[in-house]
Amino acid sequence: MKIKFKQSDIAGKLASVVRAVPSRPTHPVLANILLCADAQSSKVTLTTFDLSLGIHSTFNADIEVGGAIALPAKLFTELISRLPNGEIVLESDEAIASLTTSSGHYEVRAMDAEEFPELPEIEGDAIRVSARTLLFGIKHSSFACSDEETKQLLTGVHLKISEDSLEFAATDGHRLAIAQIDEEIAIASPLEVNIPAKALRELERVLLNSEDVVEVKLNEEQSVFAWRGQKLVSRTLEGQFPNYSQLIPRQFERLATVHRRNIISVLERVSVLADQKNSIVKFSLNSSSQEIVLSCISSEVGNAQEAIASGISGSDLEIAFNCKYLLEGLKSFASAEVQMHLNGALSPVIFTPVGGDKITYLTMPIQIRE
Amino acid sequence: MKIKFKQSDIAGKLASVVRAVPSRPTHPVLANILLCADAQSSKVTLTTFDLSLGIHSTFNADIEVGGAIALPAKLFTELISRLPNGEIVLESDEAIASLTTSSGHYEVRAMDAEEFPELPEIEGDAIRVSARTLLFGIKHSSFACSDEETKQLLTGVHLKISEDSLEFAATDGHRLAIAQIDEEIAIASPLEVNIPAKALRELERVLLNSEDVVEVKLNEEQSVFAWRGQKLVSRTLEGQFPNYSQLIPRQFERLATVHRRNIISVLERVSVLADQKNSIVKFSLNSSSQEIVLSCISSEVGNAQEAIASGISGSDLEIAFNCKYLLEGLKSFASAEVQMHLNGALSPVIFTPVGGDKITYLTMPIQIRE
Repeated sequence: MKIKFKQSDIAGKLASVVRAVPSRPTHPVLANILLCADAQSSKVTLTTFDLSLGIHSTFNADIEVGGAIALPAKLFTELISRLPNGEIVLESDEAIASLTTSSGHYEVRAMDAEEFPELPEIEGDAIRVSARTLLFGIKHSSFACSDEETKQLLTGVHLKISEDSLEFAATDGHRLAIAQIDEEIAIASPLEVNIPAKALRELERVLLNSEDVVEVKLNEEQSVFAWRGQKLVSRTLEGQFPNYSQLIPRQFERLATVHRRNIISVLERVSVLADQKNSIVKFSLNSSSQEIVLSCISSEVGNAQEAIASGISGSDLEIAFNCKYLLEGLKSFASAEVQMHLNGALSPVIFTPVGGDKITYLTMPIQIRE
Repeated sequence: MKIKFKQSDIAGKLASVVRAVPSRPTHPVLANILLCADAQSSKVTLTTFDLSLGIHSTFNADIEVGGAIALPAKLFTELISRLPNGEIVLESDEAIASLTTSSGHYEVRAMDAEEFPELPEIEGDAIRVSARTLLFGIKHSSFACSDEETKQLLTGVHLKISEDSLEFAATDGHRLAIAQIDEEIAIASPLEVNIPAKALRELERVLLNSEDVVEVKLNEEQSVFAWRGQKLVSRTLEGQFPNYSQLIPRQFERLATVHRRNIISVLERVSVLADQKNSIVKFSLNSSSQEIVLSCISSEVGNAQEAIASGISGSDLEIAFNCKYLLEGLKSFASAEVQMHLNGALSPVIFTPVGGDKITYLTMPIQIRE
């Protein structure tokens, strides 16, 4: 292989694919980046794969002799990132890759490209979804996933695609986040899959502000997202996702509207004095004064209370939450105001943004023992 | 105690004093910040002390009733940092401090101020040194200190003060950094002390770009730096600092001049392929081509070489260094160019900036086994 490219053409691509390289590879070749140069198309592809998540990226190069080689991912990425912006000539035989720049010469031990496993493919037609929709769905759901590996299915986001909308849902058993997006999708019949949150967060990172349309293929084993020569492949999670829509109450006895940034600031302050272990914050809804008093008590360090103006309909109520869950949910919203939909002190509470976004965040209250 | 102050007046002061709070206090009270309010001067002082390093800071407040209290450092700092910029009323009895803002009320368990140890004081007159001189000296020496606690004395910077100059020196046994600054000092007889690098780095942080004059008091046990109501106190390190001036060769057989940023970039690149353990980089000085070839070989991963233009006088030489030491030294300089003063392959090498700064960085070469 002998190819020529600019440092600036490869550096960004490397930085995105290297994230799928496992820190503890089960096979030595997985610690590598597969680099393939195709003389006919003048394209170089970079591939990484941890057997669950794979990323694939393409850039243009001047290809004198095509070929493929597996390069040590961490070292190669670090070296490229430190080379000056200018032309790099990469040559390789089976065991060594050499890089030549205007002033330097580097040799890196490589592995045979044949050893690198192929990324899974899915047969059939892709459906086309806008990157913007995927980004919105991921942002407003994935934070609510469980990070406990034993809860397998809950470490993923449940994705439902129908003719006219997509729905992303995630729960860790304590709270639930649902994002719905209206988009016309050319699809024969509705689809449901569970995609690991880790893979979606990588997709979020590589799509970053993209206005592209992404070709999506999904089945019970794999999910494939492809756009502009880039590709992200992830296994899907097997199993029956909880029937979350039945968790959402149909009617509410109380409604409170608050400024989102205000309540976030107050929660961040009062929670300094919450017990470290479960970080409980109490909400006291006062409809006559139209305010909510947020308070925390830590038996060891002290207590805090702060009032926040709120439009309240329904009778007064005392209800407590895990402060961390509230903050994560409220921070994921983008609206100026949020609405809390409540029933009793032990019933699930729904938060929704005021405005057009179809987002639902449900959290269970915590029983207060006085 | 009852005092009133602005959040913005206390927040920055807290952030600087809290750094002297020990993470594992030997006595519970040391995990606190001592807050003293003096009604007469309308000043509040904050003090922290880990029995080695103490920091003391002052701000103005509206003091209705003076007093003193020890507040849990981490919690109090965090709470204050999250309060909105506005007026805070702090009241305390012996066991509880309460903070009231426009919308909130906070109570924090506190400790009796009497338990908090007093910062050491030094009798006699202070000498006056510009903050700029202290900052320059610390910046160009402290990085070369040892961080091994067993090497006690070498974890400190040796400070020599005479009538017309200050000299800061630090060594970890492998390299040596010396910074000299000309400044007229009203001092009866020359002074030498060893100050822990940790304390000087804190001094650097709190002085940050200051143009003040600092009142300095030094003796064999303590060092005290005071300016504008702020004070930093540190124990000094006992013992005889190595006679470092005798390590510096008086004559050199070779001289090489290089662009500082260039050589830093090249070192950062080639060292990617250095052996992880001791990161050796070889310099090959070539006087006929007026360049230095820097190279690294790692038996496991590959090799690198890159040439850098250099004005060279003296015969050719191959010499090797620990790359980490070179980079730290070169990065501490501010000049565009640096000079390397060399004798043989096993003699100490001196780096100096080209320009006015009186900085000397000595590093020992590493013997190359081919």
